[in-house]
Amino acid sequence: HPHIDCITSRTIVRLPGLIDVHVHVREPGATHKEDWNTCTSAALAGGVTTIFAMPNTQPAVVDLESFNLSLNLAKAKARCDFAIFVGAGSSNASSICKLSPQAAALKMYLNDTFTTLRMDDVTLWMEHFEHWPKNAPLCVHAERRTVAAVLWLAETYSRSVHFCHIARREEILLIRAAKERGLPITCEVAPHHLFLSEDDIDVIGEGFAQVRPMLATKADQAALWENLDIVDCFATDHAPHTVEEKGSAKPPPGLPGLETMLPLLLTAVSEGRLTLQDIVARLHTNPSKIFGIPVQPECSTYIEVDMTESWVIPSKPKFSKAGWTPFAGRKVTGKVTRVVLHNEVAYTDGQVLVPQGFGKNIRPSEAGQATNNFNPKVHEYNNNAHVPLLPSPLGLS
Amino acid sequence: HPHIDCITSRTIVRLPGLIDVHVHVREPGATHKEDWNTCTSAALAGGVTTIFAMPNTQPAVVDLESFNLSLNLAKAKARCDFAIFVGAGSSNASSICKLSPQAAALKMYLNDTFTTLRMDDVTLWMEHFEHWPKNAPLCVHAERRTVAAVLWLAETYSRSVHFCHIARREEILLIRAAKERGLPITCEVAPHHLFLSEDDIDVIGEGFAQVRPMLATKADQAALWENLDIVDCFATDHAPHTVEEKGSAKPPPGLPGLETMLPLLLTAVSEGRLTLQDIVARLHTNPSKIFGIPVQPECSTYIEVDMTESWVIPSKPKFSKAGWTPFAGRKVTGKVTRVVLHNEVAYTDGQVLVPQGFGKNIRPSEAGQATNNFNPKVHEYNNNAHVPLLPSPLGLS
Ligand SMILES: [Zn+2]
Ligand SMILES: [Zn+2]
Ligand SMILES: [Zn+2]
Ligand SMILES: [Zn+2]
Ligand SMILES: [Zn+2]
Ligand SMILES: [Zn+2]
Ligand SMILES: [Zn+2]
Ligand SMILES: [Zn+2]
Repeated sequence: HPHIDCITSRTIVRLPGLIDVHVHVREPGATHKEDWNTCTSAALAGGVTTIFAMPNTQPAVVDLESFNLSLNLAKAKARCDFAIFVGAGSSNASSICKLSPQAAALKMYLNDTFTTLRMDDVTLWMEHFEHWPKNAPLCVHAERRTVAAVLWLAETYSRSVHFCHIARREEILLIRAAKERGLPITCEVAPHHLFLSEDDIDVIGEGFAQVRPMLATKADQAALWENLDIVDCFATDHAPHTVEEKGSAKPPPGLPGLETMLPLLLTAVSEGRLTLQDIVARLHTNPSKIFGIPVQPECSTYIEVDMTESWVIPSKPKFSKAGWTPFAGRKVTGKVTRVVLHNEVAYTDGQVLVPQGFGKNIRPSEAGQATNNFNPKVHEYNNNAHVPLLPSPLGLS
Repeated sequence: HPHIDCITSRTIVRLPGLIDVHVHVREPGATHKEDWNTCTSAALAGGVTTIFAMPNTQPAVVDLESFNLSLNLAKAKARCDFAIFVGAGSSNASSICKLSPQAAALKMYLNDTFTTLRMDDVTLWMEHFEHWPKNAPLCVHAERRTVAAVLWLAETYSRSVHFCHIARREEILLIRAAKERGLPITCEVAPHHLFLSEDDIDVIGEGFAQVRPMLATKADQAALWENLDIVDCFATDHAPHTVEEKGSAKPPPGLPGLETMLPLLLTAVSEGRLTLQDIVARLHTNPSKIFGIPVQPECSTYIEVDMTESWVIPSKPKFSKAGWTPFAGRKVTGKVTRVVLHNEVAYTDGQVLVPQGFGKNIRPSEAGQATNNFNPKVHEYNNNAHVPLLPSPLGLS
């Protein structure tokens, strides 16, 4: 018998650079959890070449001064491209709107989470819906019935709304019904809601598993997968806290996710639950269209993944200061092997190779030059294209 | 000088019998709080000739059997006219809709209150919106953002919704915005939200003042008065609990109101804050139209009030088993002197004169003969007639 050596066959695939529209950088104000250096390093290690930084920092990004503080930190320290959200507060509706050309988007916090920016009174939401320019993106943290309440505002003000981290059956069915009505809404789903449920809390630990929206039921998780056709984006909601904080008596909500999202999604591809095109649509094409991100030449910015490499997610991913992951010990298939950003190899062989400050602001308008002329979207995004019109949102007679 | 004797001048006014679309009779299940006899006696003493009984009894009215139990008690004991609500539950959407011709309306409990019927999942609300006939009235207990969520369902399902006890600025401004959009919605306001605020809690007592929606701020109270043009109905939300229960460590939410509503409203008329026509519209004409109540000949059913008599609301009104009132000690001007129901003097001189069983079911279809043919409304109700179309719901630029 001929002796056959073990032949290694690797499948390397090139994808466009991923865009993660929901990242908590934690700088300024909580650099023990994360900073622009570590966060953008973790992004590159995860195949993400652009991050949108959430405004619930300390200080929160609620005016020109705090926006410029964050922007200057990002410009100096970011290793990947970025944009910065501004946060809706109870008294900044008529001023923050001037920052729309410079901002990633407006973020409205409408349910309990790790922020000082929560708004309870719907009339405050309405003020922001009136002021924020209609062609600038507007994102909401809205859970359960609050999704329906925001849908009513979207309908009333005839404007687009992007729903962050949709997590439950109830929520995704509301999104479906609204899309069937033709509302110009979009949504994202986080990897932890796709790949974890409340059944995993015991293993992860009660405090470590805290996140908003909370890990949901198996039925909720299944509903996300069943309705993936109307999920516009994947986004990590990377929200690092330290091991010490998550293990404390008052664990803050939030999970790290940048270094694990793509391997988890590639594993789903290897299992036949997703296609690579599903990933590219939700982490590159759709975010570009929804948030009006200039098209990057795909010969100068791209990533390479090894579809075949199996490995085990370590308990302490390499770059995030969080120093832990809820996916520790999970066997995955698919690994980021190389990231090219603006013609430079930014990440390979587990090393980040571009310096701090290499990343670019994808909303380069100079802050201070405030106008209400939001850069027109790169493409018109037709979020209904793949949704059949059904007579009844719940399919009941 | 001629000696002039004190000459008494009384102004007696005749009004149509009042319709209170929001009453908790408490029978079956809690007849120590109230029953059909005492509740309808209190109604007549307050000038109310028709009450709609809420379904959060014990058992709750959620199917034909419980509906017939309540209906038979009402038929045997009611001294004024009545109709009975059915309650939306998590598993009766496809069966309860058959009771629509017999029911006052469908009641959906969407926020915390004194009931076992609360539904949290919006997809359950959607099931009821799909099943309950479009021409049958549908009422919701919805507070704050839940009002906006329900408005989205009203818009999505293109159907009328009646909002119970709107209590806050936020809520009434949402109602205004929705009416300006042309949504076929209507709302009621309770006397305790018109005549009390959280500033009164100290005097009333923490437990006695508990009610849902809770007594709100002075600003909320003022917003109700400022937006009275879009308030379709007044309704007591008469929700009696005993003095012992309200004084306990776990006071249940709810206030009695049937015997005090009209004197409080007449006092507002004497102060120039309301007109008699405002009262008749909101306690007779509009409830008739919204809930499709057959027109009663106004020569056979009417009430007489003395507009000039001033008196002090006693600590223990005469008829309700509650045995207390949050308005104790308040000086009012205006008193019910006579109630004529179906050509009989039903109340005069502080006495109820018609027997138990005298009241009629205003939805006389025989229960059991279930059809989906709701009796068409008496009139089409144009709830937008008096609302000017404004460009911006909040009046902001
Ligand atoms: Zn503005
Ligand atoms: Zn969030
Ligand atoms: Zn977040
Ligand atoms: Zn591209
Ligand atoms: Zn049905
Ligand atoms: Zn209620
Ligand atoms: Zn009630
Ligand atoms: Zn009439």
